[in-house]
Amino acid sequence: MGGIKDRVAVVGTGCSKFGENYHMGIEDMIVEAGFEAMADAGVEAKQIEAAWVGTLNSAFSGTSLGDALKIQNIPISRNENYCASGMDAFRNACFAVASGMYDVVLTLGFEKLKDSGARGIPNTRNHPVMAYGITAPNLFAMAANRHFHRYGTTKKQLALVAVKNHHNGSMNDKAHFQSEVDVETVLNAPLISSPLGLYDCCPTTDGAAAAVICRADMARSFRADYVLVKGLGLAVTSGAPYFKPGFEYDGFPATTLAAKQAYEQAGIKKPLEEIDLAETHDCFTITEILNYEDLLFCKKGTGGRFIEEGHSALGGKLPVNPSGGLKSFGHPIGATGIRMIYEVTRQLQHRVGDRQVKDAQIGLAHNLGGPGAVGCVTILGNP
Amino acid sequence: MGGIKDRVAVVGTGCSKFGENYHMGIEDMIVEAGFEAMADAGVEAKQIEAAWVGTLNSAFSGTSLGDALKIQNIPISRNENYCASGMDAFRNACFAVASGMYDVVLTLGFEKLKDSGARGIPNTRNHPVMAYGITAPNLFAMAANRHFHRYGTTKKQLALVAVKNHHNGSMNDKAHFQSEVDVETVLNAPLISSPLGLYDCCPTTDGAAAAVICRADMARSFRADYVLVKGLGLAVTSGAPYFKPGFEYDGFPATTLAAKQAYEQAGIKKPLEEIDLAETHDCFTITEILNYEDLLFCKKGTGGRFIEEGHSALGGKLPVNPSGGLKSFGHPIGATGIRMIYEVTRQLQHRVGDRQVKDAQIGLAHNLGGPGAVGCVTILGNP
Repeated sequence: MGGIKDRVAVVGTGCSKFGENYHMGIEDMIVEAGFEAMADAGVEAKQIEAAWVGTLNSAFSGTSLGDALKIQNIPISRNENYCASGMDAFRNACFAVASGMYDVVLTLGFEKLKDSGARGIPNTRNHPVMAYGITAPNLFAMAANRHFHRYGTTKKQLALVAVKNHHNGSMNDKAHFQSEVDVETVLNAPLISSPLGLYDCCPTTDGAAAAVICRADMARSFRADYVLVKGLGLAVTSGAPYFKPGFEYDGFPATTLAAKQAYEQAGIKKPLEEIDLAETHDCFTITEILNYEDLLFCKKGTGGRFIEEGHSALGGKLPVNPSGGLKSFGHPIGATGIRMIYEVTRQLQHRVGDRQVKDAQIGLAHNLGGPGAVGCVTILGNP
Repeated sequence: MGGIKDRVAVVGTGCSKFGENYHMGIEDMIVEAGFEAMADAGVEAKQIEAAWVGTLNSAFSGTSLGDALKIQNIPISRNENYCASGMDAFRNACFAVASGMYDVVLTLGFEKLKDSGARGIPNTRNHPVMAYGITAPNLFAMAANRHFHRYGTTKKQLALVAVKNHHNGSMNDKAHFQSEVDVETVLNAPLISSPLGLYDCCPTTDGAAAAVICRADMARSFRADYVLVKGLGLAVTSGAPYFKPGFEYDGFPATTLAAKQAYEQAGIKKPLEEIDLAETHDCFTITEILNYEDLLFCKKGTGGRFIEEGHSALGGKLPVNPSGGLKSFGHPIGATGIRMIYEVTRQLQHRVGDRQVKDAQIGLAHNLGGPGAVGCVTILGNP
């Protein structure tokens, strides 16, 4: 036993169009993503033995999933793990398959943030951080200022993250934003929380994404280009790190703890050399720079140079967010983690057209959630 | 592979005092249940490799658990599955252990229903059933009336469930209610939703419960009287069965579907003969009668006679809710499923004093949730 490596396979992926989906209900997006994933795997709804849904939406999510996809009468679980809800649903589904209980299961994440259909999203009145009036842009702005002060990171380096991710998103017809931006536009945009401007923030978006997974030894019967799960890391640090007197504000230990778990399971010793692409949690441009460091792609303090030197661009040493990232897709909370798994899987299958990472064999997906307290890392690879 | 039977063990259980815990916060109840479970297993917090928390409370539950128990920096997942949230957290934890990823994990459920500390409970404005003004007592009252009409079940038979469960609860110092009631009192109590009176309904309660589980092959190193997981069933039927024109109102198919999964895994062919005790979801007295039928303890329509003939009493053929049930413990949502696992485990360990079921070797725990759409069944047994 010991670990998950090469025991579970992704054989189908689906993703709704992300955006301001006022014309769609939650169920419409579930249908779009869920049936695309089943068609991609060549399975019918009746072959799905169990399901896991990731969402912050607490109004009857399991039954909503079953009703929308007509996969009733089977086990359906819901996971919520802040911004990593979708990826943690995927992780729990992998354990169930690896345990031998089920052969073929579905995992799906969704969120509807754009209208009052966003039922069940908890209010922030008693949130351990936000109750104090601190919002997400404020939190990450503090990290940006600290990084500027301590390591000489610049507003222009932040802008380069936005430019890169908008460029990648311009090649992705499922992205919320599909337009390029230039450095000037990003630097001259209205301030949201200094030093973060409008283009340093990801948008508010609706979306859903899904994956069909199965026992690795039966994956070939679904499709020849299946993808294997190599590592599943999750770490939950203290709930309000920002309030700890010793908190450094220049990175998130939860990401590093989760990455180390996943690297050890996958046998990865040198992430920069061994990983071919990564989808990481760029809720703000500064977050992507911190992610480079926290995921051990580069040394602490050198994330700004990492983007400036082009290492995270398509064609660079380790392309980050080839999909366009949260910057282009927004962050419909439960959807994001599985949307990343969709991108990584299809990159490894060499199916993504202009944004294809050449010779991609190993990919990483990463979420950061719960005011920096939750890190979740999934590593996928070709057989 | 195939199934979970005898691969995962329960080696420690804990349970807070259930009641109107105005003097306790969520964290206090987590500490009471969590550390009791760890002490019971003889493990320290630092030995816990991962955790699963079951709750309807969506305000940072994973981090709340880690902070309260000082089990930070490890993976912590949250499951929500309506009234089966705790039992589904236990189920997912079992899969993770059976997958080989972790050796020793904690699973804990909690809820605080009695004051405004009940942060994060979703409102019912958009609830698929309750948005129509139908509440839980109404739903189950309809089932009771149908059962009366179709099978001749009586208000006195309902009362016998209350009398039995209050009697059992009077022997349990962790119960919310620890007092006996008689049939007259139950029959003369104020009506809540006809035919259900005050004593036909479980109270509104705060509580938490926990279990430490591990790989079966290492269980003996923790305690000699460990208990094995024999079956884990979960079924999610359509989200609003009450609105389906053909819904019979006289039972819940989700319970039967989940029970059949668990019975098959555990190798149980004759539930009444093979199961020694059951903790079932008696949110209302009628629900327990329906559970007898849905869990296949007796034939459809004979649940009223089952209680009247004493089969579910302590000393009967299949004692049901020896703990006192939801009737005595209330139903702090996420806590209930694991509170049942606590009782079943300790019954199988012969540690429960006056309410001990003689020679107990196989026990069942059952939750019903999501307006009758979610059935969850766990079967535990001695080695």
